[in-house]
Amino acid sequence: MLKLGMIGGGHGAFIGAVHRMAAALDGRFVLVAGALSSTPEAAVSSGIALGLSRDRAYSSWRDMLAGELARPPSDRVQVVSIVTPNATHFDIALAFVQAGFDVICDKPMVIATVQADALVEAVARAGIVFAVTYNYTGYPMVRHAAAMVRRGEIGRIRKVVVEYHQGWLAAAIEETGHKQAAWRQNPAINGIGGAIGDIGTHAENLVSFVTGLEIESLCADLTSFVPGRTLDDDAAVLLRFQGGARGVLSVSQVCIGEHNNLTLRVYGETGSLAWRQEGPNALAHASADGATHTLARGTGMEAASSRLPPGHPEGFIEAFANIYRGVADAIEARVPAGTYPTVHDGARGVRFVERVVESSRRGGIWISA
Amino acid sequence: MLKLGMIGGGHGAFIGAVHRMAAALDGRFVLVAGALSSTPEAAVSSGIALGLSRDRAYSSWRDMLAGELARPPSDRVQVVSIVTPNATHFDIALAFVQAGFDVICDKPMVIATVQADALVEAVARAGIVFAVTYNYTGYPMVRHAAAMVRRGEIGRIRKVVVEYHQGWLAAAIEETGHKQAAWRQNPAINGIGGAIGDIGTHAENLVSFVTGLEIESLCADLTSFVPGRTLDDDAAVLLRFQGGARGVLSVSQVCIGEHNNLTLRVYGETGSLAWRQEGPNALAHASADGATHTLARGTGMEAASSRLPPGHPEGFIEAFANIYRGVADAIEARVPAGTYPTVHDGARGVRFVERVVESSRRGGIWISA
Amino acid sequence: MLKLGMIGGGHGAFIGAVHRMAAALDGRFVLVAGALSSTPEAAVSSGIALGLSRDRAYSSWRDMLAGELARPPSDRVQVVSIVTPNATHFDIALAFVQAGFDVICDKPMVIATVQADALVEAVARAGIVFAVTYNYTGYPMVRHAAAMVRRGEIGRIRKVVVEYHQGWLAAAIEETGHKQAAWRQNPAINGIGGAIGDIGTHAENLVSFVTGLEIESLCADLTSFVPGRTLDDDAAVLLRFQGGARGVLSVSQVCIGEHNNLTLRVYGETGSLAWRQEGPNALAHASADGATHTLARGTGMEAASSRLPPGHPEGFIEAFANIYRGVADAIEARVPAGTYPTVHDGARGVRFVERVVESSRRGGIWISA
Amino acid sequence: MLKLGMIGGGHGAFIGAVHRMAAALDGRFVLVAGALSSTPEAAVSSGIALGLSRDRAYSSWRDMLAGELARPPSDRVQVVSIVTPNATHFDIALAFVQAGFDVICDKPMVIATVQADALVEAVARAGIVFAVTYNYTGYPMVRHAAAMVRRGEIGRIRKVVVEYHQGWLAAAIEETGHKQAAWRQNPAINGIGGAIGDIGTHAENLVSFVTGLEIESLCADLTSFVPGRTLDDDAAVLLRFQGGARGVLSVSQVCIGEHNNLTLRVYGETGSLAWRQEGPNALAHASADGATHTLARGTGMEAASSRLPPGHPEGFIEAFANIYRGVADAIEARVPAGTYPTVHDGARGVRFVERVVESSRRGGIWISA
Repeated sequence: MLKLGMIGGGHGAFIGAVHRMAAALDGRFVLVAGALSSTPEAAVSSGIALGLSRDRAYSSWRDMLAGELARPPSDRVQVVSIVTPNATHFDIALAFVQAGFDVICDKPMVIATVQADALVEAVARAGIVFAVTYNYTGYPMVRHAAAMVRRGEIGRIRKVVVEYHQGWLAAAIEETGHKQAAWRQNPAINGIGGAIGDIGTHAENLVSFVTGLEIESLCADLTSFVPGRTLDDDAAVLLRFQGGARGVLSVSQVCIGEHNNLTLRVYGETGSLAWRQEGPNALAHASADGATHTLARGTGMEAASSRLPPGHPEGFIEAFANIYRGVADAIEARVPAGTYPTVHDGARGVRFVERVVESSRRGGIWISA
Repeated sequence: MLKLGMIGGGHGAFIGAVHRMAAALDGRFVLVAGALSSTPEAAVSSGIALGLSRDRAYSSWRDMLAGELARPPSDRVQVVSIVTPNATHFDIALAFVQAGFDVICDKPMVIATVQADALVEAVARAGIVFAVTYNYTGYPMVRHAAAMVRRGEIGRIRKVVVEYHQGWLAAAIEETGHKQAAWRQNPAINGIGGAIGDIGTHAENLVSFVTGLEIESLCADLTSFVPGRTLDDDAAVLLRFQGGARGVLSVSQVCIGEHNNLTLRVYGETGSLAWRQEGPNALAHASADGATHTLARGTGMEAASSRLPPGHPEGFIEAFANIYRGVADAIEARVPAGTYPTVHDGARGVRFVERVVESSRRGGIWISA
Repeated sequence: MLKLGMIGGGHGAFIGAVHRMAAALDGRFVLVAGALSSTPEAAVSSGIALGLSRDRAYSSWRDMLAGELARPPSDRVQVVSIVTPNATHFDIALAFVQAGFDVICDKPMVIATVQADALVEAVARAGIVFAVTYNYTGYPMVRHAAAMVRRGEIGRIRKVVVEYHQGWLAAAIEETGHKQAAWRQNPAINGIGGAIGDIGTHAENLVSFVTGLEIESLCADLTSFVPGRTLDDDAAVLLRFQGGARGVLSVSQVCIGEHNNLTLRVYGETGSLAWRQEGPNALAHASADGATHTLARGTGMEAASSRLPPGHPEGFIEAFANIYRGVADAIEARVPAGTYPTVHDGARGVRFVERVVESSRRGGIWISA
Repeated sequence: MLKLGMIGGGHGAFIGAVHRMAAALDGRFVLVAGALSSTPEAAVSSGIALGLSRDRAYSSWRDMLAGELARPPSDRVQVVSIVTPNATHFDIALAFVQAGFDVICDKPMVIATVQADALVEAVARAGIVFAVTYNYTGYPMVRHAAAMVRRGEIGRIRKVVVEYHQGWLAAAIEETGHKQAAWRQNPAINGIGGAIGDIGTHAENLVSFVTGLEIESLCADLTSFVPGRTLDDDAAVLLRFQGGARGVLSVSQVCIGEHNNLTLRVYGETGSLAWRQEGPNALAHASADGATHTLARGTGMEAASSRLPPGHPEGFIEAFANIYRGVADAIEARVPAGTYPTVHDGARGVRFVERVVESSRRGGIWISA
C-alpha cells in the first residue's frame, strides 16, 4: 500500500472526502499523514478524526513537509494529495515536488501560467509523478471514446460541442454563508476564472483528452449574472482547433435544473460520439448508416477501468479512483506518465482559463489559445 | 372550407406534401388550384395527379394568378401556399399579396432584407393574412413554454441555448444527384445562408417565439466542412439579447447521428425550460427546488393546439397543421394576426441570416443584430 | 378518392375525429355520408357540421344503409367506418358487409366470439375488405420490428413482455359525468372486458403482429380497483405460446402517471427488440454483442409507411392513417387482405378477451387460449 | 475501525471484491482476517495477496473461527462477511452467529426455509447484528421511495410491477467454462431457484422494502430456456398482496440486451413511483395532476445515504457501502436492527423462492406465500 498524505480536506470539505474515498476504493493507498486545514487546530482535529496518529496530524503543510522529511525514507508518505483552495496550490505543490514527493493536485492546478510553467519545470527536474485530478477522464466510457477517436472510428473530427451546466450558484448563496460558494467568488483564493475556472477547465480537459485536438484560437463571452459577483458565473466560448475543427463550449453555474451536466459530443467525418456525465456508463456512437449504437461500460475493451459488469452503475467516485489507480501504477512502475492527467494537462488548463478571460475582457474577440 | 392554391410542391417535393397534409388534417382547406412546378408540363401533371380540375392545374404561377383573378370572387382561391425554392418567394408572394390573396409562405420568407421590407409594407397595405411556416412554433409544448415564460414562471431569462443539428449533409450528396441537397448549395436559389438559412432561421424563430427576447448583437463562426461547398454547412453563434440575457446557437447539417435535433433550453432566474423537437410531446420544467417536472401535452392549458389526449403522440404534421389552423382562424375572423408566424417574423429571420453571415465574413466579430 | 361513410363519431366523440383525420391525411378518402350519432337530431347536425350534404347526413345507420343503396352504385359510399360503442358494432358491421360495402371497424370488433365467427363468415362470403383499427400496427417501427422478426434477426423468440398502462381511470370519473369513462364500465355497451377489452386487446394484437406467435394458454388475474366498478380496470396475464415462448402482459387504466404507455419487448435467442408507443419513431435492437442499436424511422426499409424523413416525428394519427392507406390500397387493388388488421385479427382479439375473463373468473387458472 | 473477516471472495470471485470495496469506502472497516476460498492453498494465497498477515490468512472457515476465538476478544474480528456459494451459507453463518460474531451474509441467505428458521432463532438468541446484502435497498432513491410510501405520498398502493432482466445467461456459457454461470445451474450449490433465486430474491426484497406490502399468494411460471439447464433461467409471477394490491414480477437471465435491469414501479391511489437500477440517482414521482417529477439524489431528505451532491453519479458500490455503513452503525450502537436488511428479510426471501418454485412445479397454480 502506498502511504498517502493529504493537504486540505478537513471537516466540511467536499473534494477532500472524495479523494479519500477514491484512494480507499482499491486498497492501494493508506492515509498516514495530513495537514487537513489552514487553521492549525482544525487541521489537527480533522486528522485525528480520520484516524491519523497524533504526530502525523500536522497543523500546517510546512510542518508536514518538515515532519515527513525527518522520518526515515521508508516511513515517509510517498504521495501527497493537495486539495486546498486554488490559490494555495502552487506553493504547496512546488515545495513537495522539490522535496521529491509524488503529488496529486486538484484542479485548477494553479492560478497563473507563470506558476504552471514553473511547476512543469520543477516536475521535470524532480522526476516525480504529478497528477491533476481531472477526474472526468477517469470514466471508462470517456477512455473508450478517446480510444475510438484514436482508432479513427469516427473519422477526422469536424465539430465538438461541450457543455458543463450547473445550477447551484443561480442565487447569491455566497452572501448567506455558503462556504463553497464564497471562496469561488474571491479572486484572491480562486483565481481569475469563475465558472470557467471551476468547471470550464474540466470541459476543456475533456475535449482535449477525447479528441486530442489543440485549440488554435478562441472567442469568449463571460457573464456574471448574479448581482454582486466579480467573477463569471457563465461562459460561452467559440473554438477553432488546429487542423480546422470547430467547437462550441457552454459553461454555467446559474442553470437552474442542471446538477452536474457535463456533456460532450464529437462529430467526425464518418461518425459521432456523445457522452453525458450524469449517465456515465453509456457511450452513444452514431455511424453513417443512421443508427445510434449505445455501448455499455463493461462489455469491451475499456475493461481495465471497470470494476463491475455492465448494468451495475459505476459513478463519480469510481472514475476518480481510476485517476488514483493510474497514479499508483505509475508510482509503483516509476513510469513517467501513465493513465492520469499530468502537469502538462494542468498547465494547459490554466492557460485556457487565462485566454478565455482575456478574450472576454477585450469584448469577445478572437485570440490565439 | 377555405379554397387553397399552391405554388410549387409537385412530384418529388418534400415540403409541399407536408403543407398539403397539414392543410387536410382538420378539414378546413380544400386544394382547388395549383402551379406545382417551375416546369409547365410537370406543373400540370402534378396538379392533375392531386385531383385538381384541368383548368386549375396551372402551368405557371403567373397563369394561376391571372386565371384565378378571372374567376368570380366567390369562386377564387382564398389563400395561396408558396413552397417554391427560396429565391423565388419574393416575386410570387408580392404578386399575390398585391392582388389581395391571403398567403402562406415557406421559410426563409425571402432572401434579402430589402425584399422583406417591401413585403412587410405590401402586406400592411393589402391588409391580408400572411403567414410564414415556422412550423416548430406550432407544437403545443412550444406554445406552452412561451406562455409559461410570459407568465413569469421561470423569472427573468438569463441564458438561452439552442441547437439545431442534422447530419444528412455530412457527405457531398449534392454532387451525386440529391436534388434537395443540390439547390441548398446554390446561392442563386437558396440565398446566402447555407445551414444557417435553411435551419438556423428556425432556431432563431423558436428562440424569439418562446422567450420574446430581441437579439442585440451577435458573433458568428460559419464553416463549410464538406469540400466544394460555397455555403456554410455549420454555424456557431454567440448572442447577446436586449436586457442582458446571453445565448449560444449551434446549427449544423454535418452532424452524423443527428436527424432533426432542434433543442431549446431557456434558463431563468427562478426556473428553466427544455424542449426537444424529436420528443415534442413533453416539456421539462425545472424549478429552484431541484426537481424536474415533465409536463405532458394534452394535460393542461395548451389544449387549443392539441388534437389528442396525452400519451398519443402528435408530431411534425400536427404542429404544421396548427399553423394552418391559425391561418384559417385568422382568415375567417379577419384578425390582423392570430396564432401563426407573420411577415414580421419572416423579415426578422431574413435579417438574422444576413447579420450572421456578415459577422462571420468579417472574421467572427460582434455586430449589431 | 374513395367515398367514405361514417357511423358514430359525432359531436364530442374522440375516436371518430381520429378516423376522420386519418382518412384525410393522404387525400385518398372523402367523407360523403354519415350517421354520426345514435340520437337522430345529433346525427344530422353532426353531419351537417362536418360538411355533409343534407340528404346524406343520415339520422340512423339503417337510414344510411337504405339511403346509400338507393343511390346508383357509382354514387354510393364505398367504405363505411364504424366508430360506435362496442356492443353495436356487430349489427351494423354485418348489415353493411352483407350489403357489399367495404368496412373499417373500430376495436374490439364485436363483444362475443359467436358474433366474431358470424362476421368472419359474412366477410368471406361477401368478399369485401374488412379492417379493424388496431392502429398501433400502423406505426412504421412496429412494422419494421415485425419484419425483423420474420427475417430471423433476433432468432427464435423466448420471452415477450407487453404492457399497456394508462392512468386516466384512476379515480371514478365515470360517476361524475365523464362520458368516455361511463360507457366503458357498462357491460351492455362495452362487453365483458374492462381495461382488458379496451386496451388489452391492442396489446394482444401488437404481440401477435410483431411476433407471429400464437397463444396456447393463459392465466389471468383481473381486478377492479376503483370501488363501484363492475368491469376490470387492471389485468395481469401470463402467456404460454405455441412452440414454447412465454409472455407477461400487464394492462391497467389506474396507473397514475402513465398516459398511453404501450410498450413491447421481445427477447429472442440472438437478439431483442423494444418499442414504446410514446416514443414511436425509434426501435431498440439489441444484439448478442451487448450494444443496443437505436433505429430511427425513415432510415430504411419501413419507408413505405413513413411520410417524413427521420427526426421529423410521426405520431398516432400518421399510424392510424397507415391503416386507412392499407384499406385504400386493398380496395383499389381488390386484394383480399393488405397491410391492415383483418376480420381474423378482430376475431382473435374478441376470443382473447373472453378467455382472459374466463381464466380470471375461475380464480386465475391456466386455460387454453 | 471495525475489524472485518471474510469467508469466500478469493481470486476471481466477483461479489467478494464488491464487499471489500463497500467496506473500504467509508473507512469504517479494516479487513484483518479471511478464509477466502474453499481450497486451502487458494484461501491462504488470496489472503496474503489482500495484505492479511500470514496467521490470519486462514485455510478454511473452521480454522478461522477457531483461530479468532483463540485471540483475546479485543483483537478478534468483530464482523464476518460470508460470500461463499449459497449452499454453504448456513453452516458458516450458524457457527459464527453461535460464537457471537456479527455477520454480513450474501443473498440468498440460505437455501431452505428450515435453515432460515434455525438461523433466525440463533440470531435472536445470540443478540448479534446479522445483515443480508440485499444491496439494492442501499440506493438513496430506493430509501427515498420507501419513505415517500410510508408518508402516504402516493396513497394506498394498488399495483406493483417489478422486473429484473439480465441477458448474460442467454447462451449456455456454463458449458464452456464460465465459473459464475456454472455453479448457478448446480442445485447442490445454488439451491432450487435459478434466476428466481439469484436475482428474483432481490426483486422480492425491493418490493417489500419500498412498499411494506406482504405477499398473500402467488402464481408462478418458471422456464429453462437454454437446453441442458436444470434450474429456471426465466420466471414470471403474479402476486396478490395482503390488503388487495396486485403485482407482476418478471425475472430473467436470458434477455439479450439487458444488463442488470432491475426496475420497480409502484402505483398508488394518488400517485406513483418509478425507479430503475441502471439510472439509480433519479426517482420518478407522478402525481394525479399528470406531471412527472424527477427527483434527484442529493437534493433532499435521503441525504444520510448520499456521499455526493446531485449530478455526481453514485452507483452500485456506494449503495452496497450503505449496507455496510448501516451495519457499522448498528454494531457501534448495538441497536438490534438499523438500516440494513436483516435475518428476517433473508428468511422471507428464502421462503419466497421456495413458494415460487412450488407454484410452478404444480403447473402454475395460486398458492399462499
